[in-house]
Parts: sequence; structure tokens; C-alpha cells
Amino acid sequence: MAGPDIEALIRQLSKLPGLGPRSARRAVLVLIKKKESLMLPLIQLLQQAADSVKICGTCGNFDSQNPCSLCLDPKRDRSTICVVEDVADLWALERSAAFRGIYHVTGGLLSPLDGVGPDDLNIAELAHRSEAKEVTEIILALSATVDGQSTAHYLAERLDGIDVTISGLAHGVPLGGELDYLDEGTLSAALKARRPV
Amino acid sequence: MAGPDIEALIRQLSKLPGLGPRSARRAVLVLIKKKESLMLPLIQLLQQAADSVKICGTCGNFDSQNPCSLCLDPKRDRSTICVVEDVADLWALERSAAFRGIYHVTGGLLSPLDGVGPDDLNIAELAHRSEAKEVTEIILALSATVDGQSTAHYLAERLDGIDVTISGLAHGVPLGGELDYLDEGTLSAALKARRPV
Repeated sequence: MAGPDIEALIRQLSKLPGLGPRSARRAVLVLIKKKESLMLPLIQLLQQAADSVKICGTCGNFDSQNPCSLCLDPKRDRSTICVVEDVADLWALERSAAFRGIYHVTGGLLSPLDGVGPDDLNIAELAHRSEAKEVTEIILALSATVDGQSTAHYLAERLDGIDVTISGLAHGVPLGGELDYLDEGTLSAALKARRPV
Repeated sequence: MAGPDIEALIRQLSKLPGLGPRSARRAVLVLIKKKESLMLPLIQLLQQAADSVKICGTCGNFDSQNPCSLCLDPKRDRSTICVVEDVADLWALERSAAFRGIYHVTGGLLSPLDGVGPDDLNIAELAHRSEAKEVTEIILALSATVDGQSTAHYLAERLDGIDVTISGLAHGVPLGGELDYLDEGTLSAALKARRPV
């Protein structure tokens, strides 16, 4: 009904996370209607990103240069490496502006059920980086899920012989969180880790 | 943090309906990770659509040819024109496969508050098409909103002198709809238009 070109575009767009077939169809209609202001610039920016984006060989971040601008930034503190599962988490931490060290992206979590073992992740390189003399702390900023925590345990064991402090993110009540909507695990963790006001 | 190319792409993608800044960022991460299987084909399909998609000069549909394949299809019933507000509605009706006539897209609804008058819509052409001898019915398939119904009234008056039947979509209980979730207006319309079982 809408021509094979449009149908193929809708199918391809609906593969993006957050877009189903219905919203992909709406998006394509808007793209066609706003060809000059929306569609053509989008094509150009996609092409530009496809041409320029590289994976940082040091930390695993996406950037237009390799090593990435974070790894090259002389103002970052090279003594602390923050280990994250995914580039999305790295970006989230950067938005918080609370961390001034450098990162290491594992590219996933260990998951024996899904057949993801240590060799499938960027872990050997982390061990190698941790041995550098300037590194004093490794922060394991992994998800508070079963896979996240078992990956954190594995990493802590793997880095055991190296002279670095290994730490993890604090658990507790999220800012803005209402107590009666929180699960019992978080509440009991927040209670155990209570601090004088 | 993610390089200017990536940030610009996220901003452009988040202009699509259904994608906010957060989901656009997720989508861009997936695009970069699946460059070969997702990003490059998407660029190609967008470019193809940008090059080929035309607006049908007869009905207003989007297609790779003008007149569109619906207007050219010899199997469509040329005696009935279904008037819709938007190409999205035309596609929705085509998916229902319940209509075998031809279409007319007005490109919007009359809205005095937003300054949209009859000359801003594709209405003169509809009057012209309705005068063709073969046309016997005009179906006004417009939204059941205030603007939709006032546009339907305007069109009915405008086409008054022409020898065609003017009809509108039936109102009633949507299939699968539960009565106690329906608004009173729909319920009373469904009751008034009740039919013997």
C-alpha cells in the first residue's frame, strides 16, 4: 500500500529499541513530511557517525577518535578505573559528572546460562590495565542484578593478586525514592549502611 | 562525552515521534554496535526513500510513483472516495482491507483556533474530484474529535450541490472494548444506533 521503499524503511526502523512497527510507521510518515528539515539531515548525521565512530582500544568507549577523548584527557585521574558493563552506563556516569577517573567497558556481564564466559568479555585487558603502577582503585559499577553481582565477584577474584583497592557502588534509597515503593532488599541494604546525619 | 558526531545524531533522532532523548541515545548505541547489520542498511533505505517517495497529485498518498499505485490500480472502485485527514489514516484503512475504493487526503483538519482554514487543506481538489460522473459516494473518515466533526460538517456543506451520497464512519463500541471503560458519548451513540442481532 505504501510502496516497497517505504515498507522496507519501516521494517528497518522498527528494529531500533523503543520503536515498534506502529511507531516506526509514524516516524517514517514524519520523516517523509519533513524531508528537508528532518530526513536529509538525519541521513547525513547517520553517515557521518558511521564513517567516524570508533571503539576506543583502551577503554571500549565509542568516540570519533581512538583512543577516545576521555582516555586522552590529561585532566582525568588515571589512578581510578571505573568498570561498566556497557557504553550506555559510561555515558550515564559522565552525565552525573561525579567521576573524574577513567573507564573500562567490559561489553557485557558474565552469564553462564547464556553462554557468556570471561573470554567473551573485555576482562583480560582490564587485568592488564590494573597492573599499571599509577592505578590504585578499581570501581566495579555493575548492575545490582544477579549477573551483575556475580560478574563483580569474578572480577574481584581475578584482580585479587594486584595491588589495587576494589570497590563497588553503594546500595540504598534512590534520591526522590519513596520508601513504600522500594523493595525489601534495597530497604534492608539502606538500613544496614545507615549513616549519622 | 560521546563526541560531537554522536551527540548531533542523538539530537536529530530524538526529534522523531516516539523517541525522547533517552531512547534516542539507546537507539544510537545499538546503531553503532550493529553498524553493518542495522546502521548502514538504514542509511541506504532512508536515502532510497528520500530519493523516490513522491506525494500523489491525485489523492495525496505517499508512494514511489505519482499518481500513486492506489490511484492507478484498475481493480479499485472509482465510484467511492474515502476522505482522510492524514496518510497515516489511509494506511490504517488499507491495513483493515475493508475498503476497495480510492482516497483523498486533506492534509489536516480545519482548526480556527490554530488558524487552519479551508484554503490550507486539500479541499478544492476534493470538490473537483467529486464532480466526476463516476463518483457516487464520499465517505468522510475523519477523527471523532471536535475538529474532525466540524471539518466533516464543512465538507458536507461544501459538497452539497454535487450529486453524491455523503456518509461518515459509524460510532459504537470498538471490537474488544469493555463497556465500563468506554466514555458516555460512545455508549450513548452505540445505544442509539443499536441493531437487531
